[in-house]
Amino acid sequence: MVRRAVIMAGGAGTRLWPLSRQDRPKQLLRLIGGVSLLRKSYERLRVLLEPEEIFIITGAVHLEQVAAELPELPHENLIGEPCGRDTAAAIGMSAALLHRRDRRTVMGIFTADHLIEPVDRFARAVERGFEAAVEHPEALVTLGIKPTWAHTGLGYIHRGQSLSEQLYRVAQFKEKPDLATAEQYLGSGEHYWNSGMFLWRTETILGELEQHLPDSHDKLMRLAEAWDSSGGGDVAEQLYPTLEKISIDFAVMEKASQVLVVPMDCKWLDVGSWTALASALEADEHGNTKAVDKAALLEADGNVLVAEGDHLIAAIGVSDLIVVHSPDATLICRKQDAEKIKPLVEQLKQDYGQRYQ
Amino acid sequence: MVRRAVIMAGGAGTRLWPLSRQDRPKQLLRLIGGVSLLRKSYERLRVLLEPEEIFIITGAVHLEQVAAELPELPHENLIGEPCGRDTAAAIGMSAALLHRRDRRTVMGIFTADHLIEPVDRFARAVERGFEAAVEHPEALVTLGIKPTWAHTGLGYIHRGQSLSEQLYRVAQFKEKPDLATAEQYLGSGEHYWNSGMFLWRTETILGELEQHLPDSHDKLMRLAEAWDSSGGGDVAEQLYPTLEKISIDFAVMEKASQVLVVPMDCKWLDVGSWTALASALEADEHGNTKAVDKAALLEADGNVLVAEGDHLIAAIGVSDLIVVHSPDATLICRKQDAEKIKPLVEQLKQDYGQRYQ
Repeated sequence: MVRRAVIMAGGAGTRLWPLSRQDRPKQLLRLIGGVSLLRKSYERLRVLLEPEEIFIITGAVHLEQVAAELPELPHENLIGEPCGRDTAAAIGMSAALLHRRDRRTVMGIFTADHLIEPVDRFARAVERGFEAAVEHPEALVTLGIKPTWAHTGLGYIHRGQSLSEQLYRVAQFKEKPDLATAEQYLGSGEHYWNSGMFLWRTETILGELEQHLPDSHDKLMRLAEAWDSSGGGDVAEQLYPTLEKISIDFAVMEKASQVLVVPMDCKWLDVGSWTALASALEADEHGNTKAVDKAALLEADGNVLVAEGDHLIAAIGVSDLIVVHSPDATLICRKQDAEKIKPLVEQLKQDYGQRYQ
Repeated sequence: MVRRAVIMAGGAGTRLWPLSRQDRPKQLLRLIGGVSLLRKSYERLRVLLEPEEIFIITGAVHLEQVAAELPELPHENLIGEPCGRDTAAAIGMSAALLHRRDRRTVMGIFTADHLIEPVDRFARAVERGFEAAVEHPEALVTLGIKPTWAHTGLGYIHRGQSLSEQLYRVAQFKEKPDLATAEQYLGSGEHYWNSGMFLWRTETILGELEQHLPDSHDKLMRLAEAWDSSGGGDVAEQLYPTLEKISIDFAVMEKASQVLVVPMDCKWLDVGSWTALASALEADEHGNTKAVDKAALLEADGNVLVAEGDHLIAAIGVSDLIVVHSPDATLICRKQDAEKIKPLVEQLKQDYGQRYQ
């Protein structure tokens, strides 16, 4: 069997406005120690794999930026989606392409917008996942994060029978719980956060797609053929947008009969909002977190300061604010109002069209 | 007699950082309806005078910017100080130059950093001042602003005997008062704010300088001669920095025997701080004042938003903040902490040298 990894790097990330935009997705922002989430994701996988074994699927419009961010990645390992059709399409497309190149492929699916630490524990769980997908040819293997708090914004995995060391059957996928249920999950020791990371044979996932999404499966086969002969071209432009838009969880995982889970005991953080970024960064002695080259603070505490490039942020007397500088827009927002960035960006669309989107 | 006006446009304005810098003085910032304070000052005088009759004295390093801001002003009407030596030097230099050109000159001294409204009342008081300086050849005439509140940050003028309509002797100049005294001044109807605007014959002010600052007077005469023959040159570079650094108030006004005051009943605002700018601008229905091309506000009130150029400021859930965008630095400051901008800029000098000064 050959091992391959696919990083899904789609999506824009409205909640990281004004830095993230439709043409500047969040996984390319160099927010953590000047390193992008995409590069971090790639470098985590490099512990186990060679550059030739790592693939990235992203929006076709972002291909150039991704190539510039990871120049060491072979260019043919970049897959550009003509449009976003959710994870079932992106995973199916990747699987179909890898399968054409080598039918004995076991692939891992990874995300580009999470911070995962420490890397050695991540690598150990991924290694175990690859092994499990080889040992259990029919299985879909998920990586389940050991929960550290009663998160109500995530789906959970309830583990069942133990198969071998660090490998369980999945008893059930659980929807986002209410707080009481989340606390019960946290206490049980039998529940994991659904990470969106999977490992399986390309043959197996394509078989599942054929069974559960037959129309899309048929199109994916034709797409993969066109991709290999002409890089996609007109066929991709016409066919890809007609793939069913559905997540791999709804389309396959919740229906498949043999789903396994490998626990991962890592700090795992979706850096999808400014407050999440703050928790990923080390705060100074006044609780200010800074993803900024130059800052000058006077009697300021608990703030999140972000600027790309060589821009100074000076703050006096303010607390618990998010301040983000981008070349054409500045955001000042109370931390507790971070959820309102999305409606603000919507409002901007009405006022200024695509300009700030 | 010929009438001339001199606008003093020196000084940087630390409290308007990060827009105002040493090489970008506040009177050139286009903050009020996109118009600079210098242009507003010039246009107020144009009600009474022709461009050829209006002069500007500013730092030599700012001459080009001033010329660009007021291209209609004859270039020979710009006087560049090699360095700042306070108002006695700037006024003495202007007076000496104007006096060489026409010994029968009556000159008015105006500032570039105040907003004065309405213009017709300003013009009426200035007209009265010019007349008074002609009628009373030995007099130094000041313009006194009728106070509208008990300001403790200004010097006051106590008027004495009434000479004619809208003209009084000055009984005494008063230092900045405490609040109780300021309230008493406000109630008396006999006190005016010391505006720093003056009218007199060049012959008269030069005579006063000869009497009270003989060393500087002698140098000013030599400077004016050098200026007229060679535009200043080496003589200016060497001599100007040796002029006594003192305000015209301390050097002359408080010592002169014949000082008159013309009351001016105007809104008169030193736009020397962000909070002062806010009071010069009209607030929206949530109390936000905006000197910015594009703003997007959600549940925000009482803020002052400032950006030069085409930059968007978006604010969510914040109150009573000053937010200022400049190309290389952003300031976020509570309104009540506006006085701390100056120490912050000092701190920046230690950390980054001249870069943000």
